[in-house]
Amino acid sequence: MVSELHAEVGSRTELAKEAVVDILSRFLADKRDAFPDMDGLPGFVDMLSDLVQGGKKMRPTLCIAGWYAGGGVGPVPQSVRVVAASLEMFHACALIHDDVMDRSTTRRGRPTIHTQFADSDRFWLEPEENIWLSNCAAILVGDLALSWTFELLHSAELTPRQRSHLFPVLDTMRTEAIYGQYLDLAGAGNLNLGVEDLLVAVRYKTAKYTLERPLHAGAALAGADAAKFEALSDFALPLGEAFQLRDDLLDVFGDPAVTGKRALDDIRECRNTVLVKVATTHGSSAHVRELMAVFGKKDLGDGDLDSVRALLSDTGAPEVVEKMILERYNTAMEVLESAKFPPGAAIILEDLARAALWRHA
Amino acid sequence: MVSELHAEVGSRTELAKEAVVDILSRFLADKRDAFPDMDGLPGFVDMLSDLVQGGKKMRPTLCIAGWYAGGGVGPVPQSVRVVAASLEMFHACALIHDDVMDRSTTRRGRPTIHTQFADSDRFWLEPEENIWLSNCAAILVGDLALSWTFELLHSAELTPRQRSHLFPVLDTMRTEAIYGQYLDLAGAGNLNLGVEDLLVAVRYKTAKYTLERPLHAGAALAGADAAKFEALSDFALPLGEAFQLRDDLLDVFGDPAVTGKRALDDIRECRNTVLVKVATTHGSSAHVRELMAVFGKKDLGDGDLDSVRALLSDTGAPEVVEKMILERYNTAMEVLESAKFPPGAAIILEDLARAALWRHA
Repeated sequence: MVSELHAEVGSRTELAKEAVVDILSRFLADKRDAFPDMDGLPGFVDMLSDLVQGGKKMRPTLCIAGWYAGGGVGPVPQSVRVVAASLEMFHACALIHDDVMDRSTTRRGRPTIHTQFADSDRFWLEPEENIWLSNCAAILVGDLALSWTFELLHSAELTPRQRSHLFPVLDTMRTEAIYGQYLDLAGAGNLNLGVEDLLVAVRYKTAKYTLERPLHAGAALAGADAAKFEALSDFALPLGEAFQLRDDLLDVFGDPAVTGKRALDDIRECRNTVLVKVATTHGSSAHVRELMAVFGKKDLGDGDLDSVRALLSDTGAPEVVEKMILERYNTAMEVLESAKFPPGAAIILEDLARAALWRHA
Repeated sequence: MVSELHAEVGSRTELAKEAVVDILSRFLADKRDAFPDMDGLPGFVDMLSDLVQGGKKMRPTLCIAGWYAGGGVGPVPQSVRVVAASLEMFHACALIHDDVMDRSTTRRGRPTIHTQFADSDRFWLEPEENIWLSNCAAILVGDLALSWTFELLHSAELTPRQRSHLFPVLDTMRTEAIYGQYLDLAGAGNLNLGVEDLLVAVRYKTAKYTLERPLHAGAALAGADAAKFEALSDFALPLGEAFQLRDDLLDVFGDPAVTGKRALDDIRECRNTVLVKVATTHGSSAHVRELMAVFGKKDLGDGDLDSVRALLSDTGAPEVVEKMILERYNTAMEVLESAKFPPGAAIILEDLARAALWRHA
C-alpha cells in the first residue's frame, strides 16, 4: 500500500517538476520574442534558459512537498506549479549574483553567466575592464531574473486568501536569502567566528532559503495551519544545516563533473565554512599553518586538489562534519515521524532528506 | 483661473510627493524592526532610508502627473501614492547597482552605498579584497531594494482592473531599464557608435524608464485609454532625451554641490555620451587626441575639471547638445499643446518639461 502511494506521489512530483521546467521555458521563450527592439535581450534569455534547465530543482520540489504536507491532495494544481517555477527564477538571480561575488567560473556544468560574458567579444575596453563589465552585465541578468520572478508569480492564478498567506512567506524568504549571502561575505576570512556563528549564516543562506521557506510556500498555498508551518520548520532547519554541511564537503571532496561546480571555490575565496573551522580547531598547529597558506589563495587550481584534500582529511574535520550531518538528519527524521504529515507528503520529505544526506551534486 | 488651478494642482502634487517619502520611510522603519535576529539588516535599512530621502522624486511625480493626465481628479489617492513610492524603491536599486558598475563615489550628496561599505570596518580580508566585498554588499542592498519594491507594490490596494492595466507597464519598465543600463556598458569605449545609436541607449535608460513608463503607470491607474498612453509617449520620449542630454552636460559642467554627484564620472568610465560623441565629430584632430587621452582615465580628479571643460567647450559640443535639448523640449511642448490633457495634468507636465530643460541637478 505504502509503496503504491510512494510510486503515485513520486510520479506526481516528477510530473510537477517537469511542468515547472516547462513553465520556465515557455515564460523565457515569450520574453525572447516580446521585445523585438532590444537586440541584446535574446542573448540574456538564452543564458537564463540554459541555467534554469539544470540543477536539482530543490526549491520547486520542496514547494510541492509543502503543498502536500499542508493538506494538498491529488495532482499538483497549475497555480502551485507556477509559484514553484517563480522560486526557481528567484534562485537563478541568487546563483548569478553569488557566482559574481564568489568569482565562480562554473555552475551546473557550464560557465557561469559572468564567465560567458567575459568569453564573448561584447565589450570594447581593455581586457581587465572588460572583465569588470562582464561582472556588471551578469548582475543585470540577475536583476532581470529577479524582476521576472514577480512576473511569473503574478501570472499564478491565486485566490486572495492564497496571496495573503503566500506573499509574506516569499517576502521573508527573499530578505533572509539576501541577508544570508551578506553573512557569507561579512564572515569571509574572519577566524574569530565559531561553529555556532557559522551555523547562523548557514541557517539564513541555506536552511531557511533552500528548505524551510519553499516548504512554507507550498503549505501556504494549501491553507495549512500554524502547527503545520512549525512542524515543517522543525524538519527543515536541521536538514538545511545538513544540506549546507554536505555542500561544504562537496566543495573540497566532490567530483566537479558531478557537482557541476569548480572545486575549492570556498577555500579560494576565504569563505568561512564549518568544515574549515572544524579543521582549524581539530588540526595541529602545523595543519593550521598549511591551511592558512592555501586559504584565500586566488590561483588555487585543480593541481592543488589532492594536497588540500589530504590536509583537511589529516585534521579529521571531514569525519566531524559527517557526524554533524548525520545528527541533523536524524533530528529531521524524528520530526518527520512525530509530525504526522499526510502519508504522501511524508514520502517526499523522507526522499528529500535522504537525498540531502547522501547526494553527490 | 489657470493660476488658481496651477496653485491647487501644484500643492496637491507636493502633498503627494511628501506622502511618497512618508510611505517609504514608514515601510523602511517597519523593516528595521521586522527581523530582530538579523544584526546587519538595520544598517542596510538606514542606508536605503538616507538614499530615498534625497533626489528629485522624478518618477513618483510623473506617476502622479500620469494619473491626472489619464483622467484622475481631486487629491491623489493612497493607492497611487503607494505605487509611486514603489517606483522610487525600484530606482534605489537601479542607483545602487549603477553606482557600483560606474564606480561612482557620490550620489545625492552622500557617499554611494558601496563607498559606505568600503569606508566601514565590516570586512576581514586585505584592503583590495574588502573593496570587492563592499561592491558585493552594495549589490545585495540593491537586491533588497528590488525585492522590497514588490512588497510595497503588493501593499497598494488596487482593483483587479488596475492591476491588469498597471502590472504590464511596470514589467516592461523594469526590463527596459535593465536593458538600457546594459547598452550603456556595452557601448563603453565603442567609438563606432553614432549619435543615433547612442540615442537608442538614452531611449531605454532614461526616456522610457524615467519619463514614459512612470507616466504610463499613473495613467494605467486612472484607467486611461490607448490614445492617452500614446500622447504621453509622444510627450515623454523627446523630453526624456532632453533630460539625459542635460545629464551628460551636468556630468562635465554641473556643480557637484548641486548635482550631488562627482563630476566627470562618464568620462572616467568611458561612457559613450552624446556630448563626447559630438565633441569627437565636431572637434579638430588635436581636440580628439586630447579627448582620447582623458577618456577612461581612472585618476581623473577635480583638478582636471577646468581643462576637460575647456577642451569640450572648444569643440563646440556643448552648444550643439544645448540645441538638441531645446529641439526636443519644443517637440514635447507641441505635443502637450495638441494632446489636450486635462488642464491640471498639463500644468504639471509643463512644469516638469521646464525643470528637465533648465535644471542644475
